[in-house]
Amino acid sequence: MKADPRGTDFRTPGTATGGKTVPTVPPAPKAAPRTTVDVTALLERGRTLATPVLRAAVDRLAPPMDTVAAYHFGWIDAQGRPADGDGGKAVRPALAVLSAEVTGAAPETGVPGAVAVELVHNFSLLHDDLMDGDEQRRHRDTVWKVHGPAQAILVGDALFALANEVLLELGTVEAGRATRRLTKASRALIDGQAQDISYEHRDRVSVEECLEMEGNKTGALLACASSIGAVLGGADEHTADTLEKYGYHLGLAFQAVDDLLGIWGDPESTGKQTWSDLRQRKKSLPVVAALAAQGTASERLGEILTADAEASDFANFSEEEFAARAALIEEAGGREWTADEARRQHTIAIEALDAVDMPDRVRDRFTALADFVVVRKR
Amino acid sequence: MKADPRGTDFRTPGTATGGKTVPTVPPAPKAAPRTTVDVTALLERGRTLATPVLRAAVDRLAPPMDTVAAYHFGWIDAQGRPADGDGGKAVRPALAVLSAEVTGAAPETGVPGAVAVELVHNFSLLHDDLMDGDEQRRHRDTVWKVHGPAQAILVGDALFALANEVLLELGTVEAGRATRRLTKASRALIDGQAQDISYEHRDRVSVEECLEMEGNKTGALLACASSIGAVLGGADEHTADTLEKYGYHLGLAFQAVDDLLGIWGDPESTGKQTWSDLRQRKKSLPVVAALAAQGTASERLGEILTADAEASDFANFSEEEFAARAALIEEAGGREWTADEARRQHTIAIEALDAVDMPDRVRDRFTALADFVVVRKR
Repeated sequence: MKADPRGTDFRTPGTATGGKTVPTVPPAPKAAPRTTVDVTALLERGRTLATPVLRAAVDRLAPPMDTVAAYHFGWIDAQGRPADGDGGKAVRPALAVLSAEVTGAAPETGVPGAVAVELVHNFSLLHDDLMDGDEQRRHRDTVWKVHGPAQAILVGDALFALANEVLLELGTVEAGRATRRLTKASRALIDGQAQDISYEHRDRVSVEECLEMEGNKTGALLACASSIGAVLGGADEHTADTLEKYGYHLGLAFQAVDDLLGIWGDPESTGKQTWSDLRQRKKSLPVVAALAAQGTASERLGEILTADAEASDFANFSEEEFAARAALIEEAGGREWTADEARRQHTIAIEALDAVDMPDRVRDRFTALADFVVVRKR
Repeated sequence: MKADPRGTDFRTPGTATGGKTVPTVPPAPKAAPRTTVDVTALLERGRTLATPVLRAAVDRLAPPMDTVAAYHFGWIDAQGRPADGDGGKAVRPALAVLSAEVTGAAPETGVPGAVAVELVHNFSLLHDDLMDGDEQRRHRDTVWKVHGPAQAILVGDALFALANEVLLELGTVEAGRATRRLTKASRALIDGQAQDISYEHRDRVSVEECLEMEGNKTGALLACASSIGAVLGGADEHTADTLEKYGYHLGLAFQAVDDLLGIWGDPESTGKQTWSDLRQRKKSLPVVAALAAQGTASERLGEILTADAEASDFANFSEEEFAARAALIEEAGGREWTADEARRQHTIAIEALDAVDMPDRVRDRFTALADFVVVRKR
C-alpha cells in the first residue's frame, strides 16, 4: 500500500517560476491520441451496478440506522421523504467494476467490492464530518447536524462492519483476500485522518507530510477501488498490487486537483464557498508548497498565516483578504507546483498499468478515468 | 447468531412472589459435582496468551493513536507513564483459547481470535462511552474525557479495523470464516447500542426488548469469543454454531448478573457508585421485569419512575430515595426474576454443550467459566 508517494520525479516546490498564472485545474496531459472512451457512460455503469446492492445492504441496518444512512446517501431528506440527492462522482464504483474486467471476469464480479469500498468511504465521511465539525456535505446538513453525534458514530460503525460483511458473505478465498486489502486501506484512511487532525494544531507541515497524509486519506482507498474487482475475479498478487499502484497515484492526483478546487474552484461547480480551504485554514498542498518555497512571497505568506491563526476576527475576513492570500500562494508557486504534481501523479498512475497484461479496451478505460480525474471541475 | 434469547423455559416476570429477599447474585446452580477446575488459572491463561499479541497489535497504530489506545487499555496513565491498570475479568480471551481445544488444537490457535474479540470489545467501549457521555471506566477517566471526542472516535475505528487485520493476515480459509462470524457479532453489538440509545428516550421497554438488546450488546460477542478459537482450529459449522449458542446464553446470564450488580452490587467490589444503574435511569432487566409485573408495587414504581424522568433535581436525590426505588423493584419481583433469568440462561448455555463432542477436560472448563460468570461479585 505504502508506495513511494513521490514516484521517481520529485521536484522541490517553488523552484518553478512563481507568480505565473496557471489554469485552475491542470489541462489534460499531452499524450498519444487514445481510443475514445465515454467516461460518463463508464461512471454511470458503476453507479447503476452498485447502487441497488448498496441500497439493499443499507436496508439491512436496524432502525433508526437505516433511515440515518439513507439520509446520508441522499436517498431521503431530513423528514424522511424520498430524495434524489447528489451521490457524488462515483469514480470508485466505476474503478471497482472495471478492475474485474482485467481478469476477464464480468464487471458484475466487482460489484460487492464496489459496494464495500463505498461503505468504507461513507463510514469515514460520517466520522470525519463529526470530528472536523463540518456542517455541510453535498449541499446538505451533515448527519451529526441532523440526527446528532451518537447516530453519526453509530451509523459510521455500522457501515464499516457492513463493508466486511458484504465481501465475506461471498464465502470465497478471493473475498477473504479482498477483505484483507480493504482492511489495510481502512487503516490507512484512519491514519490519514489522525495525521490531518494533528496537522491542524501545527504551525508548519512539510510537503512530504502533506503527501503522506493525502496518500492515506485518498490514495489508499482509490488503490483498493482500482484492484478489488480484479481480486474478486481471481487476479494474482502482482496484478492486484499493480492496480493498487495505479489507484494510489490516481488518488494523489485526485487530491491535488481537490486542493486546487478548494482554493480556486468555481463555487457554482464545486458547491463550496469561494476560497473554501483558506476559510478553513487547511494546510493543503498549494499552501504547504508555497510555504516551502524560497522568496519574499513565501515569507510574507508565512507571516500572514501565522497572524491569521491568532486572529479573533478571522470569521469576518472579507473576500479581498482571502483573495490576497490566494494571490500570495500563487506568487510563491504553490498553485503551479500542485498542478504539476497532479500531472506527475497522473503520469505515474497510467505508466503503472504497463506492468500488467489486460485487454486494450480495459486499459483505455483506466486511462480515460485517470484523465477525467485531473480535468474535472468539481 | 439470533438464537431465541428466551430458550425454552420462559416465565412471565413478576408472577413469582414479589418482595421476598433473594441474594444479590444467584447462587451456583445445583448440579452434579463437577471436576474441580481452577477458574483463576483459566482466566490467567487467556490473559497471558492474549496480552502480548494484543499489545503488539496496538503498537502498530500510528501516533498518537497508539498512546491513546494504551491509555484505554490501562497500560499507561494520562501522563504517558507505565501503569498496571485493571484489564477486566478477561472472560473473553479465556473462552477463545479454550474453544480452540474443542477441535484438539493447542490453546495458542485461539489467540488471534481472542485478540480480535478484545479489539472489537474495546472499540465498542470507546464509542459507547462517548455516545453515553460516561466519564469513568475501570476507576479511570474515559478516553474522550482525557484525549477528546475525536481521539475516542478515531482510536475506536482503528481498533475495529485492527481486529479484522489480526485475523485476516493469517491468510487461511479458517481466518476468513472467523472474520465473517466476528463481523456478524460486531453488527449485533452496534444494533444493541442503537437499541440501548433508543430505549433511553422511551417511557416503557418490554422484557423481550430488553433481552433482545442485551443479547445484541453482550450475547453476540461472547458467542463469538466462545467459538472463534474452534473456528480457527478448523471446527465444522455445527460445532461453531453450538459453541456460539453456549456463548450467547452465557452472555445473557452475564448481563443479568451485571444488571443485578448495577443496582445491588457492593461498591467496594464493583468500583461503581451505590445504585449505579438507578442513578443513570437505566432500563435494565430488574427494572423492566418489575414494571411488567402485576400488583401495587409495580404500579407505584411506574408512577415514581415517570415522575423521576421529569424531575429537575434528580441529580441531587439522596441515598434513601434510590434505596426506596430499589426496594420497590425488589417488592415487584424484578430482582428475583432477574436472578432466575441468570440461572435459566446459565442452564441453557451448559446444556447447549451436549450437542458437540469434546474432551471432558474442555467441557468441564466451559462449565466452570459459566459458573464463574453467575457467581461473580464484580
